Amino acid sequence: MAEGTALPLVLLAEQFAKLPGIGMKSAQRLAYYVMSMSSEEAQELADAVVNVHKKVHTCKVCMNFTDNELCPVCADSTRDGSVVCVVESPKDIAAFERTREYKGVYHVLHGLISPVDGITPDDLRIKELLARVAEGEIEEVIMAANPTVEGEATSMYISRLLKPLGIKVTRLAFGLPVGGTLEYADEVTLFRALENRNEM
Amino acid sequence: MAEGTALPLVLLAEQFAKLPGIGMKSAQRLAYYVMSMSSEEAQELADAVVNVHKKVHTCKVCMNFTDNELCPVCADSTRDGSVVCVVESPKDIAAFERTREYKGVYHVLHGLISPVDGITPDDLRIKELLARVAEGEIEEVIMAANPTVEGEATSMYISRLLKPLGIKVTRLAFGLPVGGTLEYADEVTLFRALENRNEM
Repeated sequence: MAEGTALPLVLLAEQFAKLPGIGMKSAQRLAYYVMSMSSEEAQELADAVVNVHKKVHTCKVCMNFTDNELCPVCADSTRDGSVVCVVESPKDIAAFERTREYKGVYHVLHGLISPVDGITPDDLRIKELLARVAEGEIEEVIMAANPTVEGEATSMYISRLLKPLGIKVTRLAFGLPVGGTLEYADEVTLFRALENRNEM
Repeated sequence: MAEGTALPLVLLAEQFAKLPGIGMKSAQRLAYYVMSMSSEEAQELADAVVNVHKKVHTCKVCMNFTDNELCPVCADSTRDGSVVCVVESPKDIAAFERTREYKGVYHVLHGLISPVDGITPDDLRIKELLARVAEGEIEEVIMAANPTVEGEATSMYISRLLKPLGIKVTRLAFGLPVGGTLEYADEVTLFRALENRNEM
């Protein structure tokens, strides 16, 4: 921010600008907005930021974020523990839970293999997944990493570790998005949709 | 956020979603990002939020935000105290200061007259402006409220109060934005640019 601005406002804008998707201009606007909030509201925002670090940690089973020993999914005895959906991050679980159709459990890798960024299999929660599989209850592992180069590499790596153990390893289907039109589908998606066509 | 998400993360996302320009989807992403920050970084963000309320208040002269008795502009003895630029909010001062060309001082109204929203002249810092003018040093008042209905109404109102006092009241020029093209200028702007044309 330019001269003429109070230092604490500049410092707050700099903090906001560190967040993803927030540029310096938006950050300044947010800083001024915080100034227009009541002191109580500002304190609530600050407390909420600190509380996620104080109270949230990983579930000891699936590595999802939770403020208890087990995450809500692992603590739910009606979920099918024989099917595990492997995702990159806890926010992917929220996406699956919104479908209200998946009844299995999850395993969060907390990243994807990426040699460029120096992230190796040892940096991910793969050991924990293998330990869960070794307990014998798991029959199917659904690989649900994003379909990027890193996601594909990670899925292949884990798949190769699991198959010798007699575990069924599946992956999410590719195809047209529901409600999407052919006109706007990219050629790779369209090819996959054609390849994976189902009988009507 | 859906089930399967830790409550403190949901609460933080709700706090972020209260900020202007941040929808629920972005708010969730920000909440997960805070979780990926170190505890120290999260504490710094929280402290910055609380600090603007603890440390920032209005300058006793111009009503700009400051963490001292006087804002940086009013505290600067090289500024020309005979010219006052009247703006809606402190962030407008930052915009003027970025030009590095304006050498006068400011007065922040902290709002604009808006009968629809129940904001009357008494809700703005107009009395404080009149008190400054009464001290006798001010020769020119530049009305720099945004060119909206409320901005125009406020500028007209203040102008009518100041003119009988023998103060020169001016306003910002309308015209083409620098770097803009005729093709994309709206008709009102183009008409104003034509009307205010200058000899070359």
